[in-house]
Amino acid sequence: MKIERVKGTRDFLPGEMAKRRWVFERIREVFERYNFHEVLTPTFEYTELFKLRSGEEVVKQLYAFLDKGGRDISLRPDMTSSVARLYVNQFQTAPKPIKWYYMANMFRYEEPQSGRYREFWQAGVELIGSDKVEADAEVIALFVESYLATGLEDFTVNIGDRILLDEFAKMLGVKDDIGLMRLIDKKDKLSREEFIKALEDFGLSDDGVEKVLSLIEIKGEPDEVLPKAEELFTSDEAKAEIKRLYQLVDLLDAYGVSKWIRIDLGIARGFDYYTSVVFEAIAPNDLGIGSIGGGGRYDNLIEVFGGKPTPATGFAIGIERLIPILEWKGLIPEPKLRPDVYVIPIGEDLEVKKAAIEIVSAMRMAGVKADVELTGRKIGKALDYAGRLGVPYVVLIGKRDLAEGKVTIRDMGSGEQKAVEKEKVVEEILGLLGL
Amino acid sequence: MKIERVKGTRDFLPGEMAKRRWVFERIREVFERYNFHEVLTPTFEYTELFKLRSGEEVVKQLYAFLDKGGRDISLRPDMTSSVARLYVNQFQTAPKPIKWYYMANMFRYEEPQSGRYREFWQAGVELIGSDKVEADAEVIALFVESYLATGLEDFTVNIGDRILLDEFAKMLGVKDDIGLMRLIDKKDKLSREEFIKALEDFGLSDDGVEKVLSLIEIKGEPDEVLPKAEELFTSDEAKAEIKRLYQLVDLLDAYGVSKWIRIDLGIARGFDYYTSVVFEAIAPNDLGIGSIGGGGRYDNLIEVFGGKPTPATGFAIGIERLIPILEWKGLIPEPKLRPDVYVIPIGEDLEVKKAAIEIVSAMRMAGVKADVELTGRKIGKALDYAGRLGVPYVVLIGKRDLAEGKVTIRDMGSGEQKAVEKEKVVEEILGLLGL
Repeated sequence: MKIERVKGTRDFLPGEMAKRRWVFERIREVFERYNFHEVLTPTFEYTELFKLRSGEEVVKQLYAFLDKGGRDISLRPDMTSSVARLYVNQFQTAPKPIKWYYMANMFRYEEPQSGRYREFWQAGVELIGSDKVEADAEVIALFVESYLATGLEDFTVNIGDRILLDEFAKMLGVKDDIGLMRLIDKKDKLSREEFIKALEDFGLSDDGVEKVLSLIEIKGEPDEVLPKAEELFTSDEAKAEIKRLYQLVDLLDAYGVSKWIRIDLGIARGFDYYTSVVFEAIAPNDLGIGSIGGGGRYDNLIEVFGGKPTPATGFAIGIERLIPILEWKGLIPEPKLRPDVYVIPIGEDLEVKKAAIEIVSAMRMAGVKADVELTGRKIGKALDYAGRLGVPYVVLIGKRDLAEGKVTIRDMGSGEQKAVEKEKVVEEILGLLGL
Repeated sequence: MKIERVKGTRDFLPGEMAKRRWVFERIREVFERYNFHEVLTPTFEYTELFKLRSGEEVVKQLYAFLDKGGRDISLRPDMTSSVARLYVNQFQTAPKPIKWYYMANMFRYEEPQSGRYREFWQAGVELIGSDKVEADAEVIALFVESYLATGLEDFTVNIGDRILLDEFAKMLGVKDDIGLMRLIDKKDKLSREEFIKALEDFGLSDDGVEKVLSLIEIKGEPDEVLPKAEELFTSDEAKAEIKRLYQLVDLLDAYGVSKWIRIDLGIARGFDYYTSVVFEAIAPNDLGIGSIGGGGRYDNLIEVFGGKPTPATGFAIGIERLIPILEWKGLIPEPKLRPDVYVIPIGEDLEVKKAAIEIVSAMRMAGVKADVELTGRKIGKALDYAGRLGVPYVVLIGKRDLAEGKVTIRDMGSGEQKAVEKEKVVEEILGLLGL
């Protein structure tokens, strides 16, 4: 009986897997260069852990179950909860800041759709133990450089601020500030009319609706946009936060990443736990893909997980969002899945087979990607196979040639063959491959 | 509230994670050199899939649950079932052989004990589409070379054979051949007396017990041991299989891995699905760790998963078994988790902070692992921090120095400091680090 894979999950075949690895490695190099270090937590945790911080939607989508010991466990829907748990359990007294990164799979039970899967990967960092704007700048600069490392250049990182959104809710006299943020977060998914209708349904007055519409216009180049924010907001707290945003923009300039930075005060980033700066990356595309990653500062979260109050900031890159865009732009090199040399022993003679293995072993040891015929097929079919794979050189080993210490190299492009001494075949091949 | 991680699972901290990555990468290089290509299947599959081939014990230990759509799914307990499913669904008509590898996590609900975890990793290969002894030789040679690539030299790969065990059961008139194999597999876990008792309880006559005791003595150097097997076995089928083992040993000699190869006809490797050659790797150790990996030929399995009859052979390396042995032998290089340079801006001046960032960015771009003070701590504490991490060089940036275009490099070993021009600091540091 034939069994299919579960809906919403994927198999990664060799070509795709090699490309994914390429993307992960480019990002890893940058993470390491910034002195972040990799951690990995278990694939499942007590369900309780994920309920502590996550919004309703995430809890609804948990892969939760009872294990054979009756424990209520869940596959992780994100990594931040597990990292916070690890920090609280073992690292509260370690020197600060802690700079961790992860590259791991997450799980959410949601309807499969373009770029959304039930198992998906994220590459992210958490910087724990600094409330300074320098820490935000380091993390946002790394965020920009991670995308640049994959060859992507046409993208922006849009920065919003939860303190300003809170202040804004106060200005409007809105008590349900989270509700307002959720609504503002949906602005790009609704038409202008639908958005206005939603704001009215939320209970805003005409003046309130006007204010929201002007808030979400505060987006663009920091120099042009931050002065507008200074006009809109009047409280001391808001003024202080705007000053911090000016500093952040200044520091990001020192990192050399200003070109990719925009302000967008209409960004809230769904999760309830962000406390000040939030940001997300957007790359223009025809694929219907929105944000390709995001993050922000979450100064209250460690406390939620039972730790002493500890400031933190971080981001996650959505690999399933990023890769289609890189593919669409042709930025991921085509992996080479064929060997450079294919060694074919002719006939069933064991000595001939041994010679083939000796040659393929010597080539592999010399760093050549070499393979040897393993199915016992006849020479014609073996050559067809090599031809279909696009192997550039084949080494043929016949019993009579071998008795004279010789083997044959065939150039699969031209069809030319030449006999060479068995002892010199590796050297010859290295020469042909330019190694 | 504080939440612990689930029993039997682990957190991998930066040092351990870097070491694990080192091990995976050494093994990956060899897999790729042998022209195997990476695939990855979903973390969970329909529970049915894992029941198709697995022994009772594995099914008992499945992490099985109903998802929100009511599907009966399980976390994978091994990779072979998923790979066979993938092959049957998409690759039956692809050119053969298929050479796939994987490096992934598996899940089993069993009592946690030394070297056994509920989430564990395996690095393995499957070679699908050849029934030839060459295919077994390629896979076993790769198995040996994978361990060698991690620096391990003191280990053996012991080769047994299921056809010979079947023939042996026939010779003894035993109908429950699987039961007999399971029993023989336990030989090293029981004392000689317990083993004899178990054989008697199984229903063997005194002569039968004697024969089993002589079978399990057929272990050691192939040249010495295979002739004994020729004496013990009389059927044509057994003779043919022994001839195949001689060829296998000959081909492994051509691969240059004979030194690590032993025959041990008492190996059955638990799983019911092996059909001829089976093998496992053992490395002497004081840690109570037995097999560090194993595999064999499974020519009937693809059919079990609904495919056309297709021969296959493969192995899996148990990463949680291997790593403690490598650690115990000191074979894994200590990862460097500290930066080479730590840049400290003195005071709160934004221009000084910007200069610090410009310098750290320039160093990172030049390939130096550099970090910058992000917590706003005072210079004394920042130097303490750098000292505790073991950072060799610190760059101090003060407002007055900076006004003259200068910064200070401090050698943390000697405590010596020297002022250098800001524009030349990267060059200076590269020189000091010998880069």
